[in-house]
Amino acid sequence: MSSMTTEVIDHSTQPEDSPALRALYKSFEEEHVMPLWTQIGDLMPLHPKPKAVPHVWKWAKLLPLAEESGRLVPVGRGGERRALGLSNPGLPGNAYISPTLWAAIQYLEPRETAPEHRHSQNAFRFVVEGEGVWTVVNGDPVRMSRGDFLLTPGWHFHGHHNDTDQPMAWIDGLDIPFSYQNDVGFFEFGSERVTDYATPNFSRSERLWAHPGLRPLSGLQDTASSPIGAYRWEYTDQALTEQLLLEDEGQPATMEQGHAAIRYVNPTTGGDVMPTIRAEFHRLRSGAVTPSRREVGSTVFQVFEGKGGAVIGDVEYSLDKGDIFVIPSWVSWSLWADTQFDLFRFSDAPIMERLHFARSQIEAGRR
Amino acid sequence: MSSMTTEVIDHSTQPEDSPALRALYKSFEEEHVMPLWTQIGDLMPLHPKPKAVPHVWKWAKLLPLAEESGRLVPVGRGGERRALGLSNPGLPGNAYISPTLWAAIQYLEPRETAPEHRHSQNAFRFVVEGEGVWTVVNGDPVRMSRGDFLLTPGWHFHGHHNDTDQPMAWIDGLDIPFSYQNDVGFFEFGSERVTDYATPNFSRSERLWAHPGLRPLSGLQDTASSPIGAYRWEYTDQALTEQLLLEDEGQPATMEQGHAAIRYVNPTTGGDVMPTIRAEFHRLRSGAVTPSRREVGSTVFQVFEGKGGAVIGDVEYSLDKGDIFVIPSWVSWSLWADTQFDLFRFSDAPIMERLHFARSQIEAGRR
Amino acid sequence: MSSMTTEVIDHSTQPEDSPALRALYKSFEEEHVMPLWTQIGDLMPLHPKPKAVPHVWKWAKLLPLAEESGRLVPVGRGGERRALGLSNPGLPGNAYISPTLWAAIQYLEPRETAPEHRHSQNAFRFVVEGEGVWTVVNGDPVRMSRGDFLLTPGWHFHGHHNDTDQPMAWIDGLDIPFSYQNDVGFFEFGSERVTDYATPNFSRSERLWAHPGLRPLSGLQDTASSPIGAYRWEYTDQALTEQLLLEDEGQPATMEQGHAAIRYVNPTTGGDVMPTIRAEFHRLRSGAVTPSRREVGSTVFQVFEGKGGAVIGDVEYSLDKGDIFVIPSWVSWSLWADTQFDLFRFSDAPIMERLHFARSQIEAGRR
Amino acid sequence: MSSMTTEVIDHSTQPEDSPALRALYKSFEEEHVMPLWTQIGDLMPLHPKPKAVPHVWKWAKLLPLAEESGRLVPVGRGGERRALGLSNPGLPGNAYISPTLWAAIQYLEPRETAPEHRHSQNAFRFVVEGEGVWTVVNGDPVRMSRGDFLLTPGWHFHGHHNDTDQPMAWIDGLDIPFSYQNDVGFFEFGSERVTDYATPNFSRSERLWAHPGLRPLSGLQDTASSPIGAYRWEYTDQALTEQLLLEDEGQPATMEQGHAAIRYVNPTTGGDVMPTIRAEFHRLRSGAVTPSRREVGSTVFQVFEGKGGAVIGDVEYSLDKGDIFVIPSWVSWSLWADTQFDLFRFSDAPIMERLHFARSQIEAGRR
Repeated sequence: MSSMTTEVIDHSTQPEDSPALRALYKSFEEEHVMPLWTQIGDLMPLHPKPKAVPHVWKWAKLLPLAEESGRLVPVGRGGERRALGLSNPGLPGNAYISPTLWAAIQYLEPRETAPEHRHSQNAFRFVVEGEGVWTVVNGDPVRMSRGDFLLTPGWHFHGHHNDTDQPMAWIDGLDIPFSYQNDVGFFEFGSERVTDYATPNFSRSERLWAHPGLRPLSGLQDTASSPIGAYRWEYTDQALTEQLLLEDEGQPATMEQGHAAIRYVNPTTGGDVMPTIRAEFHRLRSGAVTPSRREVGSTVFQVFEGKGGAVIGDVEYSLDKGDIFVIPSWVSWSLWADTQFDLFRFSDAPIMERLHFARSQIEAGRR
Repeated sequence: MSSMTTEVIDHSTQPEDSPALRALYKSFEEEHVMPLWTQIGDLMPLHPKPKAVPHVWKWAKLLPLAEESGRLVPVGRGGERRALGLSNPGLPGNAYISPTLWAAIQYLEPRETAPEHRHSQNAFRFVVEGEGVWTVVNGDPVRMSRGDFLLTPGWHFHGHHNDTDQPMAWIDGLDIPFSYQNDVGFFEFGSERVTDYATPNFSRSERLWAHPGLRPLSGLQDTASSPIGAYRWEYTDQALTEQLLLEDEGQPATMEQGHAAIRYVNPTTGGDVMPTIRAEFHRLRSGAVTPSRREVGSTVFQVFEGKGGAVIGDVEYSLDKGDIFVIPSWVSWSLWADTQFDLFRFSDAPIMERLHFARSQIEAGRR
Repeated sequence: MSSMTTEVIDHSTQPEDSPALRALYKSFEEEHVMPLWTQIGDLMPLHPKPKAVPHVWKWAKLLPLAEESGRLVPVGRGGERRALGLSNPGLPGNAYISPTLWAAIQYLEPRETAPEHRHSQNAFRFVVEGEGVWTVVNGDPVRMSRGDFLLTPGWHFHGHHNDTDQPMAWIDGLDIPFSYQNDVGFFEFGSERVTDYATPNFSRSERLWAHPGLRPLSGLQDTASSPIGAYRWEYTDQALTEQLLLEDEGQPATMEQGHAAIRYVNPTTGGDVMPTIRAEFHRLRSGAVTPSRREVGSTVFQVFEGKGGAVIGDVEYSLDKGDIFVIPSWVSWSLWADTQFDLFRFSDAPIMERLHFARSQIEAGRR
Repeated sequence: MSSMTTEVIDHSTQPEDSPALRALYKSFEEEHVMPLWTQIGDLMPLHPKPKAVPHVWKWAKLLPLAEESGRLVPVGRGGERRALGLSNPGLPGNAYISPTLWAAIQYLEPRETAPEHRHSQNAFRFVVEGEGVWTVVNGDPVRMSRGDFLLTPGWHFHGHHNDTDQPMAWIDGLDIPFSYQNDVGFFEFGSERVTDYATPNFSRSERLWAHPGLRPLSGLQDTASSPIGAYRWEYTDQALTEQLLLEDEGQPATMEQGHAAIRYVNPTTGGDVMPTIRAEFHRLRSGAVTPSRREVGSTVFQVFEGKGGAVIGDVEYSLDKGDIFVIPSWVSWSLWADTQFDLFRFSDAPIMERLHFARSQIEAGRR
């Protein structure tokens, strides 16, 4: 093999065509077997060659579609959610943003309710703008406000209702493609309405769990997913602000120069919030550029605030508030910031790490 | 919704057709989004509804195909292996036995060598009959004999060579479909030949690690996969024999009455041999019937010895030596034994457990 | 043996005295051996029979001793700390509050500095009243204020300085007896002064780590001890307040009726703050009585606020602000509250749990 | 402080004597407090300064004492065991070989039974010579033969009986000093006789668990201690033999040149056999010398076979079969072999590691 090898298969070594070979191949079909030697090039690439492609969805385009859906499509039992799944152009026919992840913009008209259900799929919501909706998780009403990250882990009942006279949009993230592909999903209907229309400022889950370094003695059992229902923007913002101030003071606090970042974690373990989904928030100082990275697994960002861009593979993308983009497995990416640049991120990294497929590479920054 | 609900979607609640709706749907396509409300029935079933179907491959049919492949198809660099992947009839176009697992019969002619390579995909071999091949794993030659279970965990170099004048067949199990679907695979070529043509009775890995309850002080670091290269039939048989004798003595030792079973484990952790694949060996006494089970995740059995059968879903299958069958996610199964009945089993259970999707149900036995 | 057995040894079964036996016993001494049969009653009791006894130290007595020490005893290199260790009356000759734990009142005069050092022993401070001292931990100045719980885990450099014109007292907790008994301690001198006399409101450790459910990406490595230098009273108070409010709303949040409690935890793992010491804060509603408990391991409480009492073994003790009491292993205890009653608690529970010696029993409340 | 500092305390900095100081010190006594500044030198040494000392007990002296005890001292309920505890000369008045560990020679006359009991203390036996006794652990009779390592983990019932007309001696190892010091021990009597006088070659625990890399499906729950009742000499010897053969072949297998070693492990976790005690077996080639090591925690060796010696601290000891020696915490040690030299070892290392006090140092070999 030459050192220029770009795929595993060597077509010159395939068996020569013959009636016997054709007969054999026909027998394969009858017996439901397929030879490895004809497929190995596709099946076992030299490095991940995702069918999914990098793509940016502009918020300025998404939001009007959600609004028009609000006008035309009712929300209720049977359709369950007014959600528009982002469909990776490389994975046509499915609303999969990557082979593992689902990302959607969800929309509720004033005073609407999305009925309760539960499913094995792990879900979260992130609020890029707006307020007024409460999500009710296992009976606990959770306020949704700008910058908040909210959890509905697998098999937790949840519904949403808009308590205001304004519509509200947000993004949902789930492991639907992974669950579908691997046949792991259960689904159960709950109440047609949400079970509690109260609109408290803080959910019971936060009141019990969102105290730094403090664990209730009523909650000593570790849980697969975080018991915190909402990670409030106020805390996220403060943590990132402090990291950059510490960096100013010469302290090791940021991920790299000019790049603050936190991971949302399960306080019972210090690990990821849900078994399949990692969630983080990143802040770049104006002018910062991150090194180019690539990682096994797919990741999605949404711009929360500020202006900047991303180099994904070989392409540069300018990014504005609300824009959502996906980076497939082993595609390199780098971010740059024209202003202070805030981004929410989620990925399938827990899958990769728990199954020992994680790998990453860092190169020097670019642009 | 009625209590007879069999799917999540309720088509009667879909939005009414209109020019505006059609325009909206067209915009969805342009912007690469898809509505959840039209797809949720398929995407989020009430319980796993695998596309994969139960299927039995008869050894009496497979082996001749492998033999004919031996006559017609060379083995070497570029095709890499003379392996026939079992293709689930519900997953046409791929040699996937399930959405996560690959199972193949591999075949080496006398004196042949399959060249070395390594890949992220985890692999094992199980030998239902025959002997004479050595698999060389990271330079360590491992004898392959009847009843042996052999490991080539992810990113370990491996090649095979037949040291005899007889051909040999065995089965390979890998996580190729999972790796392909999730874009995690790397591949690297090694030597064109195997790096060591020695034919020792026991591999170095066994000599260092296969001592019950004893860990070398040179190996105190836990490893993601088992360091044992071969789990010998002699030990497996003995462990199962003892379980049934203990049961005869009234001791709790078997999994259930008349059903002995062992799991192959990583001695550094007591857990599964590889991060994505569980492997076990089951022995039923003549006349035993197991309760009907179903589990999230897919599983594959190969009959090693004896006669019996399986009820999978609603269908009964008679089983003979070497027969391979697959049980997709959440399909019920039960085994019965007409003689002492020995079966090798592998599954994707570590994926399900590590990601907290595992569920199971046991009902009374049937038949 | 009768069912009334109260100790293991049965003196009637001891060997009969004889010249040969006396000669044998003399040989034992010469060869440095001792027979089990004469000692087993003491060595292996039917249940833990601690030499340590329950005891209450009254703050009203302790504080004047600390103040007088402030007048008479300098603080500096060689004596290291002006600390008065509480000496369990059952363990005479040592300042051990229990076989595993050390508790002391430490005192700094205005403008004094206690020099820096580090040691294997894990240490914390808890502030029952006062303010004005900063403890500098690995160069990070940490404000000490009323109600704060502060960490100096093993092998972290630390010194203290009083930035005010008022003296300040607090309590120290360490695992000195355990470390001494088991010969695990190392000690190293640091700066004669503290390395940083800054008096920030919040330490760098808090700025980086004390955000609920948020983990800095610069701190993804788990640590044996918590990276949070100070657990502030404001958060502790709020967490306890919320637990009682949730209880009022009928939600499961408290440890038991009228008894709120939090454990201080390491955010990288969700587990105890240090490998040998557990720390908690308990709040009883006025009128609440806890069930009688006993546990393997020793525990120490300090009253932070309010009035109430404890039944320890068979004795009732009235308790006031600042009072410190110890409960030895397997001695039953119960608390009652005459007002809202706040108590700081620490114990050696991580030792017992990690070594699988933990056991506990709960009986009905008493008094 | 000078750089020659050898202890923490500096007596020149102690407060000056005065009537006021004397009055203060008297008040300390009355209030059960003790100042740190007078004790810190002893309490917090610069490195571990164990009271325990290195010591060798010669088997040639121990065995006759056990034999004479057999003649003079009955075994039965109330004294429980005919065991002679090795008493560290540095820890007078106790049969403690170190602050954490107990080691004893136990002796049974022909046909004798030591009655059943259970206790929190973890125990093992190691057989340097002889055979004919069965230990019955939770009803499972376990043959004791030369070279075997046998477990009776905490709270397992156990008794012993000699089925032959020959006496038998062996060593016991327990965590009695640790348990006593920390008040963790419970004790319960069982049968006056052993519950099963059968004398099978292999215990049920071995038949179920002692198969390399194979775990029974009836035993998927991890256990705090190993479920294997006996680790047979045959396997230990084979594992060590293979390590040295692999070393001969140029493979990495031994701990260091000429020094093979295995750790006995719990097959459910790969970790230590019991929560407080580590056990290993070491084999040196004739002529081998190990580097000088020191470790936090105490360790005990017994020579099983061969001749050699140890340098402990600064002293050389010649060692013969059966000799037992203890190395206190942080005392350096090195072994040399005059013949092939086999040693059994146990230590409190799991305590040190689980509580994060472990440290070690390796220097070049000596002698």
